[in-house]
Amino acid sequence: MSRRQTINPGWDIYSHLTFAPAVRKGNMLFISGTDATELDSVTGRVVVRGDMVQQYRTIYEKIKLILEAAGATFDDIVCTCDYLRTKEGYKGTAAVRREYFGSSFPAASGIVVKDLISRDALIEMDAVAILDTA
Amino acid sequence: MSRRQTINPGWDIYSHLTFAPAVRKGNMLFISGTDATELDSVTGRVVVRGDMVQQYRTIYEKIKLILEAAGATFDDIVCTCDYLRTKEGYKGTAAVRREYFGSSFPAASGIVVKDLISRDALIEMDAVAILDTA
Amino acid sequence: MSRRQTINPGWDIYSHLTFAPAVRKGNMLFISGTDATELDSVTGRVVVRGDMVQQYRTIYEKIKLILEAAGATFDDIVCTCDYLRTKEGYKGTAAVRREYFGSSFPAASGIVVKDLISRDALIEMDAVAILDTA
Repeated sequence: MSRRQTINPGWDIYSHLTFAPAVRKGNMLFISGTDATELDSVTGRVVVRGDMVQQYRTIYEKIKLILEAAGATFDDIVCTCDYLRTKEGYKGTAAVRREYFGSSFPAASGIVVKDLISRDALIEMDAVAILDTA
Repeated sequence: MSRRQTINPGWDIYSHLTFAPAVRKGNMLFISGTDATELDSVTGRVVVRGDMVQQYRTIYEKIKLILEAAGATFDDIVCTCDYLRTKEGYKGTAAVRREYFGSSFPAASGIVVKDLISRDALIEMDAVAILDTA
Repeated sequence: MSRRQTINPGWDIYSHLTFAPAVRKGNMLFISGTDATELDSVTGRVVVRGDMVQQYRTIYEKIKLILEAAGATFDDIVCTCDYLRTKEGYKGTAAVRREYFGSSFPAASGIVVKDLISRDALIEMDAVAILDTA
């Protein structure tokens, strides 16, 4: 089996971090806890935009890039875990899941945490995918 | 490899939710965060019964149904994660684990969270299982 | 496929617990939430030493023993999850990750929890590894 393979859609900031956006080994893909921080092209600082639903959609757009870089799709995701700062606004995120997963969903957990690492993040998600081919 | 397969022991409420009770792909089974909510046949509302130990046993009974629907057993579970509202009563849950796992246990994590999604839930657990045959 | 295999580097205390330090099945290794408790050889009590960075290094030394007992290395770890009592001191843990992972990192999540099971633990980590051979 091949070694642990770093999956990075081209996000430079990860050269300073001690984890990868995602890692693939064999046919398994582990996607790191992903929040709605985006690299601001002007200042180079990470920013978080929007309310919880907007943040959740940004997370899914980022994970879409990760999946593409790994040769996978949302159909390959088998589980997700949502980490919430608050339950307020959480119901609205179901629409985002329908948008990206269609009508067949992965397993999921969701918990309210005391705090998230990124200061303005309201929600963060990690995921596991199993690709069709090794 | 086959596609992501929804595992549902027949719980109608999941037709309204954006995650599956569990998902199997190949020989891997991902069991969603499961709390002690039960569908009340009279009112159709979800209810949570009992103290933490009673809730934990209800969780294991629900996961037993998930495992059966997936063709798996508690022997196939390789890890669990407990999400607690409080440490109070947690020691008592060890008896439930002995009851369902016998003397050979999976890996586990356990953390105290700020809140769980279901209002009266004291504890919730997710799990991963690896089946003997793909 | 073989049954769930308990991985224990020789830690007697686990004979009283209802989870294993780690479990291997096939080529997958699930490492339990590991904190900096150490078995005090004099009193037989578990103790936690140091600040968050020292605790994190102790965790990695314990996980090193688990990996060795499973025939795996840090190169085989595909994801980790850090559970923090506080963000204070967390930045310093990056140096520990560089020390044990080198320059190629696993996927990771990190959340601040309300509490950890061990009273004086500041940080806890679990992990998944995929071994090169089944």
